[in-house]
Amino acid sequence: MSTPHRVKVSLPEANSRGYEVLVGSGLFASLATALSRFCPAHRYAVVTDDRVAELYAVRLSRMLHSAGHRTDVFAFTSGEAQKTRETWSLVSDAMMESGCGRDTAVIAFGGGVPGDLGGFVAATYMRGLPLVQVPTTLLAMIDASVGGKTGVDTPAGKNLVGAFHQPQCVLIDPEMLQTLPDAHLRSGMAEAVKHGAIADAEYLDWIEDNVESLLAADPQALSRLIMRSVEIKAEIVASDVMECGPRKLLNFGHTIGHAVETLSGYALLHGEAVAVGMVEEARIGERAGVTAAGTSARLRRVLTRLGLPTSLPIDFGADAVVQHTRLDKKARAGRVEYSLIQDFGRPFIGPAGVWGHPVADETVAEVLAGVGSRG
Amino acid sequence: MSTPHRVKVSLPEANSRGYEVLVGSGLFASLATALSRFCPAHRYAVVTDDRVAELYAVRLSRMLHSAGHRTDVFAFTSGEAQKTRETWSLVSDAMMESGCGRDTAVIAFGGGVPGDLGGFVAATYMRGLPLVQVPTTLLAMIDASVGGKTGVDTPAGKNLVGAFHQPQCVLIDPEMLQTLPDAHLRSGMAEAVKHGAIADAEYLDWIEDNVESLLAADPQALSRLIMRSVEIKAEIVASDVMECGPRKLLNFGHTIGHAVETLSGYALLHGEAVAVGMVEEARIGERAGVTAAGTSARLRRVLTRLGLPTSLPIDFGADAVVQHTRLDKKARAGRVEYSLIQDFGRPFIGPAGVWGHPVADETVAEVLAGVGSRG
Repeated sequence: MSTPHRVKVSLPEANSRGYEVLVGSGLFASLATALSRFCPAHRYAVVTDDRVAELYAVRLSRMLHSAGHRTDVFAFTSGEAQKTRETWSLVSDAMMESGCGRDTAVIAFGGGVPGDLGGFVAATYMRGLPLVQVPTTLLAMIDASVGGKTGVDTPAGKNLVGAFHQPQCVLIDPEMLQTLPDAHLRSGMAEAVKHGAIADAEYLDWIEDNVESLLAADPQALSRLIMRSVEIKAEIVASDVMECGPRKLLNFGHTIGHAVETLSGYALLHGEAVAVGMVEEARIGERAGVTAAGTSARLRRVLTRLGLPTSLPIDFGADAVVQHTRLDKKARAGRVEYSLIQDFGRPFIGPAGVWGHPVADETVAEVLAGVGSRG
Repeated sequence: MSTPHRVKVSLPEANSRGYEVLVGSGLFASLATALSRFCPAHRYAVVTDDRVAELYAVRLSRMLHSAGHRTDVFAFTSGEAQKTRETWSLVSDAMMESGCGRDTAVIAFGGGVPGDLGGFVAATYMRGLPLVQVPTTLLAMIDASVGGKTGVDTPAGKNLVGAFHQPQCVLIDPEMLQTLPDAHLRSGMAEAVKHGAIADAEYLDWIEDNVESLLAADPQALSRLIMRSVEIKAEIVASDVMECGPRKLLNFGHTIGHAVETLSGYALLHGEAVAVGMVEEARIGERAGVTAAGTSARLRRVLTRLGLPTSLPIDFGADAVVQHTRLDKKARAGRVEYSLIQDFGRPFIGPAGVWGHPVADETVAEVLAGVGSRG
């Protein structure tokens, strides 16, 4: 294994500890050493899904056992539909049955679902256990693993129940992406595009210049993508742990995106829904006069080249989407706030330094319904 | 209303905010003002049980509405048996149905169950809402409302799932104790005795000297008891938010106490179980040579005068109790740690500054079974 790249996540508000995100090809093979160093514990509870378990559980258990780490694997059925309070209860109960105490650390191992759900188990088991995130999808590597967000879905919507719970460390091995289905690789790239859009125009250029290598899962290109995205997310999170200010930026594309994802019954992957959401929210921003003309067209071009969708599925009613945005956690005082950009790398900040721009439902509905105006 | 007494709870570790515990006769009547000052929010979700709701909900809603606070009451069936993940889910879902967003604050209103469960709803609803604790039982006032512990029970034991979530403020009106059943008043006093035992021998003397006025629910005596207990707990919590050091002291009587409470099927009130637990743990400490001789006898005398039980129910097997302590959150590395005192007001601190004393199961079983040795 080459020496991993390290990104420090500082947490000035929640506490002074902070943690490191390690990115390195082949890092998975030295997981046991990393655990001893960054998260020593009496025993480890690996929370994962059955698909990831099938690929990696035997190897993982063998590695940890041979390093002397007592390890149990708790695997649930894979899929966003399982990211529920019921699965969270089952995993917690199984850990209690096997006698996991406060001296246990949780390893959330897999994509976004094991990451969020395993994180929420760690956040709430005996009021909190140490947590290590080992993401195995691109989306989880560059998005879900940094920021400390954990949680599960409820019938009313995504991530409506959860907690902030920072990991002791995040271990990312880009080689694990070699087994990731194409659609999931593309889905993860949508969040990378978002990072470029909100914080770093040059990064967005770089992504566009490297579409071919990225889609071919070239290890070097993917490593660079992961590192830059993790850096951007870590910088934003460090400035705003509790999500009251700049962190709202990360919601770009997500207000419409979440609505679209839920309305699709999760037939659309998260990144696919966010791709649609970014284009639509750029159009909303253009209509509201805060986003530079041409922003949505550029986003559509990059996302299309990455094989991502850029407009609402044809059978989606604009009204249904609007209705759904009102349930969003970002709805405050009865209005829905959008995180918009002025231009690439330049977030919109409203009067009095307010992050987030309230947009009237009618405007959103008009933009969403305005098929004729699309480029 | 007289000016309330204020106890500041400082939180050096978790964050720099801290909060105030207000204790004042008649304080409930000025709840609306206190909310505006300490926890302004777009709307309020009152989480309570049906018994408390019956006594206070109409008055509470009227007060808040007339102050312009949008308020909804979410009441569940009363009783420890309802402190479950299922009730937590139902309350969260009901809040979602009524459209509560991140601009909502939760008021946990009632005894320990609404306090813990309402707190856990606040800790996890959309990853955390502001929380105000308004305890209505003596136990909740002096114990549950300070420290930020929230959570629910699972089939495996009490409080096994939860989170630390500090309130914006705690509002205590001792007049509310006038409607509290005697057994619950006595149960609360067990925790006050614990505060004296672990931290302030003079306070323990004062309690013993004032047993009659306390049992008669004399408002002045109760106010003084609440304030001193809140002060003691606040000092301990402030020094150790995450419960790694001195806060373990507060577990005195609780390792055996929790086991006894669970084994009784919650027929014993929490304070009753803790009363038994303190006497037994003092005996364990005496046997282990860390607790001064006569400590358990003195505790038994005070607790008996307060009308609290001081020995295991006759049909409880010592082995069953020991078995249950192994499930305790304080079990580490396979051994059960007890929080013991050397003498009243003098906690036991082990070698290398370790708080907590591991005791062999056999010793505990011998002490618990040793009926002949009881005074």
